[in-house]
Amino acid sequence: MTDMTERRGRTGGRAGRQAARLSAQIEREPFLTRTLKPVEVLSDEGLALLETNADRILEEVGIEFHDAPDALELFAGAGASVDGQRVRFPKGLCRSLVQATAPPEFTQVARNRANDVVFGGRRTIFAPAYGSPFVRDLDGGRRYGTIEDFRNFVKLTYASPWLHHSGGTVCEPVDVPVNKRHYDMVHAHIRYSDKPFMGSVTRPERARDSVDMARIVFGEDFVDEHTVVFSLVNANSPLVWDASMLGAARAYAEANQAVMMTPFVLAGAMSPATVAACCAQTLAEALAGMAYVQLVRAGAPVVFGSFASSMSMQSGAPTFGTPEPALVLYVMASLARRLGVPFRSGGAFTASKVADAQAAYESANTMQPTLLGGVNFVLHAAGWLEGGLSMGYEKFVLDNDQLGMWHAFARGVDMSENGQAMDAFLTNEPGTHFLGHPHTLANFEQAFYRSPTSDNSSFEQWEGEGAQDAATRANAMWKRTLAEYEAPPIDDAVEQELREWIERKKASFPDSNV
Amino acid sequence: MTDMTERRGRTGGRAGRQAARLSAQIEREPFLTRTLKPVEVLSDEGLALLETNADRILEEVGIEFHDAPDALELFAGAGASVDGQRVRFPKGLCRSLVQATAPPEFTQVARNRANDVVFGGRRTIFAPAYGSPFVRDLDGGRRYGTIEDFRNFVKLTYASPWLHHSGGTVCEPVDVPVNKRHYDMVHAHIRYSDKPFMGSVTRPERARDSVDMARIVFGEDFVDEHTVVFSLVNANSPLVWDASMLGAARAYAEANQAVMMTPFVLAGAMSPATVAACCAQTLAEALAGMAYVQLVRAGAPVVFGSFASSMSMQSGAPTFGTPEPALVLYVMASLARRLGVPFRSGGAFTASKVADAQAAYESANTMQPTLLGGVNFVLHAAGWLEGGLSMGYEKFVLDNDQLGMWHAFARGVDMSENGQAMDAFLTNEPGTHFLGHPHTLANFEQAFYRSPTSDNSSFEQWEGEGAQDAATRANAMWKRTLAEYEAPPIDDAVEQELREWIERKKASFPDSNV
Repeated sequence: MTDMTERRGRTGGRAGRQAARLSAQIEREPFLTRTLKPVEVLSDEGLALLETNADRILEEVGIEFHDAPDALELFAGAGASVDGQRVRFPKGLCRSLVQATAPPEFTQVARNRANDVVFGGRRTIFAPAYGSPFVRDLDGGRRYGTIEDFRNFVKLTYASPWLHHSGGTVCEPVDVPVNKRHYDMVHAHIRYSDKPFMGSVTRPERARDSVDMARIVFGEDFVDEHTVVFSLVNANSPLVWDASMLGAARAYAEANQAVMMTPFVLAGAMSPATVAACCAQTLAEALAGMAYVQLVRAGAPVVFGSFASSMSMQSGAPTFGTPEPALVLYVMASLARRLGVPFRSGGAFTASKVADAQAAYESANTMQPTLLGGVNFVLHAAGWLEGGLSMGYEKFVLDNDQLGMWHAFARGVDMSENGQAMDAFLTNEPGTHFLGHPHTLANFEQAFYRSPTSDNSSFEQWEGEGAQDAATRANAMWKRTLAEYEAPPIDDAVEQELREWIERKKASFPDSNV
Repeated sequence: MTDMTERRGRTGGRAGRQAARLSAQIEREPFLTRTLKPVEVLSDEGLALLETNADRILEEVGIEFHDAPDALELFAGAGASVDGQRVRFPKGLCRSLVQATAPPEFTQVARNRANDVVFGGRRTIFAPAYGSPFVRDLDGGRRYGTIEDFRNFVKLTYASPWLHHSGGTVCEPVDVPVNKRHYDMVHAHIRYSDKPFMGSVTRPERARDSVDMARIVFGEDFVDEHTVVFSLVNANSPLVWDASMLGAARAYAEANQAVMMTPFVLAGAMSPATVAACCAQTLAEALAGMAYVQLVRAGAPVVFGSFASSMSMQSGAPTFGTPEPALVLYVMASLARRLGVPFRSGGAFTASKVADAQAAYESANTMQPTLLGGVNFVLHAAGWLEGGLSMGYEKFVLDNDQLGMWHAFARGVDMSENGQAMDAFLTNEPGTHFLGHPHTLANFEQAFYRSPTSDNSSFEQWEGEGAQDAATRANAMWKRTLAEYEAPPIDDAVEQELREWIERKKASFPDSNV
């Protein structure tokens, strides 16, 4: 980390001391490390059959790359058959391209190195929800997101001990022109947090801008050799990758920055309506996307993404927290492990408009397979409402509490002598409670996860305090967190250079909402 | 089923035809059969160590049987060392007593044989919550339960395609004297449902009354040879079994009826505050309780129960949906499988007073390990609020919907040709959606679980319909279900005999609230 230390060194030791104090205040793990074996819902034979089906889709149907001549050229050079925009892949080609050079694990460096995240293996990284045009809180109801909302969610994520990653488009800042939003968004992640973040993908030049901003912060040489920007690239399912997304992927890969190639499948519409079909298609699309990234730059960090939802037969609306996408998630995690690349899926999904029982049940129904299945990067881990159309302040607080619980669960069963507590049994009579026992007194503080959002008091006490539901309690919590927020230190010169660069860029072309 | 057919035969074919029509209307499975391997959170070595620790607790500390001379005598006769009320067990004694004669699987016969449930193996049986003095609905708020509430929950459970078992004390009918409640409760299960049910355990004579009522319905000979009543017997943790509960267990076991011997542990108070200690203690207590049942009557059906909750360090209040009891649940399910008896645990637990996001998150956090861990009998699967103090009408509806989801999840991934849908891929161009594809049209109806409680409509539509949260929607649902309720047929003569028997019994001793 020579480069960053040197750059930080410019403002002397004060920022460093501040950073040390801050990290002592916010005690946290840079990512979650699972100790339990991932849950498998299919046998090896079943998984192998899905791989065969994905190979058949790649070979017999193929994938279309729209308006992307570079992709067609790269794949033709690698031995695929190109017919118009359709690419058909000899059996195993994509898999071998990915397995040959895609790193099984990689590190994304954060502005504060204590927050570096490692993708892959038994690690799970939580990031907030992504991409909603609306925000919602109990006071203002549902409204378009603004850059102030964006900054608020960056700050709330920074303050969370359980969210490891600052995310990307935590909400759309609709008050900023579409073609200049990425400057303010990336700046917010850099200025209001020191956790790792995601860059823009809506246009290739916006991806390049995101990397350029990172170069100002981390140093050019450092960025050449380290991954400091992460990005979300979606397929246009079924079986299509589009130019704008591929262009962004190319920009990041060329700069050795990380992309997650993610089929986004509303099963029944964008794939056949069965779990096995959705899985085979997702594998085929992701393999083609990741192979493209490896052809652009062998060894560029890439993540296998999967987003799958079911749909309502009555309305065609996406539905969340249902059993079938949970099965898809378990299967895709297994397939990614077999492939040997980091896997992204999951999230606190719901179709509910508010942070009610539907929202919590549906979110839990996705987060459980996310953790038990062994997902490495969890986008949408907090705040998601209304099928992703809205980012909820109260929902964010409640989801975040659940992420804390997962940190405790992931540690598994403590089988140490203290955990077994045989001495406690041998020194306690039947019928005598353990409340005052030395073993209890020694362990109580850390024994159980303490939820800040749950109310465990008596009915009478709860009623006396206003009979608040969970969302109402959460409302007070995000306000207090924002009120107490203190920005992490940043080198003044870097911040000034960044601001000036953004101003110059913004001034160099007219506003547009395309 | 000769006996029941004969008894039913008394009123001729009409009831039989009605029953046939009814079961055609309510399409349901008599119990859930899991296809996935249970999730294990501990290695075989870890589980063996907990068994060793339980053996040490049984041998070195022992279990107390309070005011239960018959238990002391039975255990002394079996080779245990009895000192006052304390029984110390030679290593492996309890385990060998249980494994020698306790059935690994057994059937509880229902009044409608289509509803018979089989305990053990890969089966999971859902029953409503049990034991709350209060009920809650959105209209009336929280209030003491009445016999009308009790009957309502029996009816709602009967109407559910996902609840397999009518349960027991679905709420306390506080308007009926304590010493006569069991007559009205057991009668309600028999009259307003034809699913299997649980009998009274508060006094040995009430357990015997419950069996006597079953004899009137099923016939004496039939009851001698079949299990028709199930019951919940709790330990008085730590390491104590009490006379009243043991007396009830004895009454059921002597009649060859089923008991679940359940340590009920608030960890930190009733056990040491660690997962491994809570598990070893639960195993020790359950082993002693089940061994007692087998000594009373070798081969009597018995279920290994576990109820574990964490507690709030601040208040001492029980807390639910936290990670540590989830780990306990997984471990206990594994230990029960190793022992070879059916296992009871789980439930839609919450400390929340209302059916809000807290309630749903906490409930999901217990129901996920319940299903994934492989629990055989799930008490409290619907309705539980406020740490069990309240039975919620809306919560019941929302929980019940989740049980439906579990039925879909438990089937696992369909790897049939139709499930793989390769023909669909080979007949669909990239970029063309699958909505109108013949494969989708053939599968859509059954493709995804359809939640009756979730709102998946657009924000505008949802707002136009009154911006209802999940609890508000659920309120309308339980009312409609009760309005549409039709009682299952019952032999008029049986019903009359039962009512007369209850009247005679009730008249034979004065009311009392003890």
